[in-house]
Amino acid sequence: MYISVIGAGECASELADKASEVGALIAKRGHVLVCGGLGGVMDAAARGAHGEGGTVVGILPDEDRRRASRWLTVSIPTGMGQARNALVAASGDAVIAVGGGYGTLSEIGFALKLGRPVIGLDTWELDAAGARQGGLLKASSPRDAVDMAEQHVAS
Amino acid sequence: MYISVIGAGECASELADKASEVGALIAKRGHVLVCGGLGGVMDAAARGAHGEGGTVVGILPDEDRRRASRWLTVSIPTGMGQARNALVAASGDAVIAVGGGYGTLSEIGFALKLGRPVIGLDTWELDAAGARQGGLLKASSPRDAVDMAEQHVAS
Amino acid sequence: MYISVIGAGECASELADKASEVGALIAKRGHVLVCGGLGGVMDAAARGAHGEGGTVVGILPDEDRRRASRWLTVSIPTGMGQARNALVAASGDAVIAVGGGYGTLSEIGFALKLGRPVIGLDTWELDAAGARQGGLLKASSPRDAVDMAEQHVAS
Amino acid sequence: MYISVIGAGECASELADKASEVGALIAKRGHVLVCGGLGGVMDAAARGAHGEGGTVVGILPDEDRRRASRWLTVSIPTGMGQARNALVAASGDAVIAVGGGYGTLSEIGFALKLGRPVIGLDTWELDAAGARQGGLLKASSPRDAVDMAEQHVAS
Repeated sequence: MYISVIGAGECASELADKASEVGALIAKRGHVLVCGGLGGVMDAAARGAHGEGGTVVGILPDEDRRRASRWLTVSIPTGMGQARNALVAASGDAVIAVGGGYGTLSEIGFALKLGRPVIGLDTWELDAAGARQGGLLKASSPRDAVDMAEQHVAS
Repeated sequence: MYISVIGAGECASELADKASEVGALIAKRGHVLVCGGLGGVMDAAARGAHGEGGTVVGILPDEDRRRASRWLTVSIPTGMGQARNALVAASGDAVIAVGGGYGTLSEIGFALKLGRPVIGLDTWELDAAGARQGGLLKASSPRDAVDMAEQHVAS
Repeated sequence: MYISVIGAGECASELADKASEVGALIAKRGHVLVCGGLGGVMDAAARGAHGEGGTVVGILPDEDRRRASRWLTVSIPTGMGQARNALVAASGDAVIAVGGGYGTLSEIGFALKLGRPVIGLDTWELDAAGARQGGLLKASSPRDAVDMAEQHVAS
Repeated sequence: MYISVIGAGECASELADKASEVGALIAKRGHVLVCGGLGGVMDAAARGAHGEGGTVVGILPDEDRRRASRWLTVSIPTGMGQARNALVAASGDAVIAVGGGYGTLSEIGFALKLGRPVIGLDTWELDAAGARQGGLLKASSPRDAVDMAEQHVAS
């Protein structure tokens, strides 16, 4: 199972700790972690998974690997800039958003559009106008987030 | 000036009327309208602009033009699926969201990430967790939306 | 009908003259010209079409329009870098290669893969190993190239 | 070091044997193999590397993993169709083309454009018009191809 962890390229240490814990749990349970391959939440999640011997894939916006997190098992330079967010979303059987900025918002939209379960941890609150579906699931902790990801993919 | 109009591929007639009015105003004021080139809000906005003799660009998810709205001046088949949303967002000096589903949400995220002003009409409510910026501007009518787009690009 | 004109971002004046003549003929015959939107062959073809009052679409590798040729009717910033070549190829009902470097080679490959007729003018010679099809058609002049594009789309 | 192996989605068994040998050598020498993740040359190269315990990355054109080769360590669904070829090319520090059709041709163009060394084994012959550079290096065997890839990245 592949789980994408999405979040901003810069983040406070408290959020990085949560992202790292999410990453560690993903690796412990034998899943592949996919992220955007740069800093902040991406780097923290990668570090957590790497510490548990997990496989970490980073899908980079650049044409080369110079800015890649050091904790990636495999890095994919795309040269596509922000459009690579669509690939990060598509690569997860489930997606976990940790905090997040505008790029994260685009990935949440993509993942929901593709029908992937999306779990949020301290992330955007989305209220759909009118009768539309909410979509984004809310987790209370890193463990809760990974549990929910597993449950929604299994079902 | 380019204004992207984003919204779902299917929509109620009331929303289509608003999208069409947005499109007509964009054309009357001499701007190019960019959209995703398919049905629903995209088709309605394109129809509105076409009725006023405007230029309408549709950036399609498909490899060919078979599903394109009939109201486009120029259509761009991308074969990129949902990742083409990044291009619709990038192509607008300003972006107006009319209603909208998950694809629209991804386009809002992209446009904000690129620093484009994004104006919402009956669309998502976004509350950023913690101290983050809101970003999405709220319009009360089609005219208000186009006015806001012009003001924010000019400033 | 849409015709994509592909070629390098820098070129000798003789090749620019041919590209410009191809562009002018495309416009005179009422077709939309699509190109990569930058300099060299792209700019020359755009200039030729613009001079005849044609519609010219430029699909840019950048996130913004700063490097765009001045002769474009419509420009599409993609932020996708070289991957935008796939879109230039997909957007033409036929593709005409004028001279060309490595980016042009990628566009020829894409266009042939999508089944578009590709006409070459002073461009790459491609010899397929073994029993594979050649694919690339060879024109002797700008007029010949546009004639061939029309014939192959019509048939 | 990452080496991308490119080639058609269907191929004769003789070519598959060569692709498999290229893949096996890449894995034995400790490199990561990147490919387009589907059948033919891609599947054969992946199989070869997998048999030697190597890491194999497949960058898929689809939104999901259903058509993925069974020999991939990591698969990346892109939903981008043929435009994903740009990513396969960008992901290799060097690129080895084995046989190949039009998609392969687009990947050769991309890789050369990005300055990656490209080694061909029973693939396209490219003759640049006029004074342009040839670019594509020619290998005589799978071992020769992998040797050349290593030498050109090292230098």
